[in-house]
Amino acid sequence: MENIEGNISVIELEPWELVDHIGETIQIHGSIYKIRKMKGFAFVLLRTKRDIVQCIATKDTEIPVEESCVVITANVVEECRSKTGYELHIEKIKVVSNPYEISPIVINQKIVDTSIENLLDYRPITLRNEKERAIFKLQEGICRGIREFLYNEHFTEIHTPKIVQSGAEGGANIFSLNYFGQEAYLTQSPQFYKQMMVGVFERVFEIAPVFRAEKHDTSRHLNEYTSVDFEMGYIESFKEIMEMETAMLKYALNYLSEYYEKEIVLLNLSLPMVETIPAISFCEAKMKIAEAYNRPVKDWEDFEPEEEKLLSELILKETGSEFVFVTHYPSIKRPFYAMDNKENCNETESFDLLFRGLEITTGGQRIHNYEEQISKMKRKNMNVQLFESYLMIHKHGIPPHGGLGLGLERFTSKLLGYENVRFTTLFPRDINRLIP
Amino acid sequence: MENIEGNISVIELEPWELVDHIGETIQIHGSIYKIRKMKGFAFVLLRTKRDIVQCIATKDTEIPVEESCVVITANVVEECRSKTGYELHIEKIKVVSNPYEISPIVINQKIVDTSIENLLDYRPITLRNEKERAIFKLQEGICRGIREFLYNEHFTEIHTPKIVQSGAEGGANIFSLNYFGQEAYLTQSPQFYKQMMVGVFERVFEIAPVFRAEKHDTSRHLNEYTSVDFEMGYIESFKEIMEMETAMLKYALNYLSEYYEKEIVLLNLSLPMVETIPAISFCEAKMKIAEAYNRPVKDWEDFEPEEEKLLSELILKETGSEFVFVTHYPSIKRPFYAMDNKENCNETESFDLLFRGLEITTGGQRIHNYEEQISKMKRKNMNVQLFESYLMIHKHGIPPHGGLGLGLERFTSKLLGYENVRFTTLFPRDINRLIP
Repeated sequence: MENIEGNISVIELEPWELVDHIGETIQIHGSIYKIRKMKGFAFVLLRTKRDIVQCIATKDTEIPVEESCVVITANVVEECRSKTGYELHIEKIKVVSNPYEISPIVINQKIVDTSIENLLDYRPITLRNEKERAIFKLQEGICRGIREFLYNEHFTEIHTPKIVQSGAEGGANIFSLNYFGQEAYLTQSPQFYKQMMVGVFERVFEIAPVFRAEKHDTSRHLNEYTSVDFEMGYIESFKEIMEMETAMLKYALNYLSEYYEKEIVLLNLSLPMVETIPAISFCEAKMKIAEAYNRPVKDWEDFEPEEEKLLSELILKETGSEFVFVTHYPSIKRPFYAMDNKENCNETESFDLLFRGLEITTGGQRIHNYEEQISKMKRKNMNVQLFESYLMIHKHGIPPHGGLGLGLERFTSKLLGYENVRFTTLFPRDINRLIP
Repeated sequence: MENIEGNISVIELEPWELVDHIGETIQIHGSIYKIRKMKGFAFVLLRTKRDIVQCIATKDTEIPVEESCVVITANVVEECRSKTGYELHIEKIKVVSNPYEISPIVINQKIVDTSIENLLDYRPITLRNEKERAIFKLQEGICRGIREFLYNEHFTEIHTPKIVQSGAEGGANIFSLNYFGQEAYLTQSPQFYKQMMVGVFERVFEIAPVFRAEKHDTSRHLNEYTSVDFEMGYIESFKEIMEMETAMLKYALNYLSEYYEKEIVLLNLSLPMVETIPAISFCEAKMKIAEAYNRPVKDWEDFEPEEEKLLSELILKETGSEFVFVTHYPSIKRPFYAMDNKENCNETESFDLLFRGLEITTGGQRIHNYEEQISKMKRKNMNVQLFESYLMIHKHGIPPHGGLGLGLERFTSKLLGYENVRFTTLFPRDINRLIP
């Protein structure tokens, strides 16, 4: 190996710039992803920020082991058989960091061929696989698309506290901690805070972690996930929230098409079409599933996961849509801030969004009238005094408003066709998993 | 009050669109921010998403109380004495939400004239003040500018877990919680995870909450804050991290000038110039302060807060810069992953950034060599086995890398000239404050 320091006439380039430098000697850095020895030469695949670049080494080149971090000096040679239109003929390899040991998991095949436990246990290494990392590059794109959309719609981005005095959703699914002698909780949702901020900026959003002490070890639950939350004022109906979400998803999916084609191709993805999303009420949906599949309704208060799948199948068949809004969930299953239907107080002005058989969003209109909110809290036997600072907004004037929370990892998993949400979580947390 | 429903020929507009609709009848919604009764008419200030719009009501108009949420039908009248170039002559006011009670705190004066305790206790209401909310609109701008810069520099945005098995910084300043029978912690920094992700994407960033069980009740500490973290591979020196931060701050400040002028004017802000930022080593800085202010050095391992202020003063006088990098902090005060100086192992390849007398960033180069990392951990008497999954990156190859964490609220507070970081935190958490 030679020392190439001081060779300042050679410029360092990114892979996407190389096509404009055919015939030139350039420098490029990255990890040695894969070495394929042939007769008289070797293919060396270099993993860079976003690309895998094909290099050719002559048989005299000393090639460092895989996962070595290197700076390569190479000649850019036109090669029409290569996807990129070029390949790099290596002149020199400078090693800047050596692995101490070879990885116990093979990461440079098409997929990481191992159990989900291994895949997650060795996450710092398995994420280096080309397809594994593409999942999270694409997830970045979803967030970017959503952010751009919400900025365009005049939402203000906020940062609300994750350590809180009371949970937004109630129930037992809440982590508690000792906060200097007081009991505190990890937030299940930024609900109260985003509602407070509607009084300030009218439209707000946050993309941030939320925590659920969920004891169920299922393929769709995580104990910590990224929630995309927005809340908006001056609505006349929760339908405006559904319209905003439809437009947001459409925008985000178009954003992926435009800026993340590389990952879409690599993951062999077909993006769903979003023009309009059909909506069906909870009761209608229950009956429709019962009828179509000859399944008597056991629980009129909530869906079984199986029913969400069946409903998605039915709607897909009938309308071609892979999304479906289910509206008017029973009041008994919705939180105290959910606005009840004026005609039927057992139903709420709320919705879920199902995508490919899985609930990915819960949203709805909230109560804005102080007396209405107090009265609903009393009906639910809640201690109103504990919510004094939250209720300031109702007491001192807040517009009619509503919003939603979208589970980023769930949406990504369904978009990519994974059954288990852990595949689309960088470092998942579940009842058995706290590392890495 | 009249019902204006069904009046579909009147279009609803945003304040910034009104100037193109002089002479027309339009609709606009917002909160009644302030009513000023004059002889024969009244000024009604309407608080909208980002603007306060001046409306004129005749003496016959029934004006609802302040903080009522309304939809106003009005005629747009040219008015050169108004900053906006127009005022709205109210035709109808439709109330969509009534406050139940008048706020106990006056929020519609130039500033909210009350104690910091009241300001924070009544946060959901006091944030409605025009200047209070401008602080957080500007904070949004800082994040947007930073994000745009980092995307342009090919950083990938990541979401890492906040519930962790071990803290990145060590020490007692860590919140613990019961995680299904195991002890877990709230992350003090995404340090380990962003380092892991350098092996995946080379350059990564995250803007997310971090938690410190800091028992000191000072003007510059919070128990939860928003950390802007980035980490990048293939560096030759920590100076590249400082260069990247300099460029990032410059970009973000320019971004504010371009898109947040409204808030800059309202807050009477003069943005600092960033071209180059002077750097001084920790030891030199210590001696410089001692000499200039005739203060013998008491502690050679860390700065006292007073010293940070004095150093900033000195540097400002000498160079005109309100920022200063302090480099080569003592190894004893830096975490185990900090790379030591090759010539002097008591110093680290690290830096802090001081801005207007306050540390707003800590950063540096990290150890990438496995044996070097193990050996430093052993010197620090750490249990290496506890860090097995983190050490996978060192064991299986990671490029030379470094990064930093910037405290968003601290940066905002100094930018706005506040002494207390609570003023620039939406809902601050400190040893005495868990609500709202």
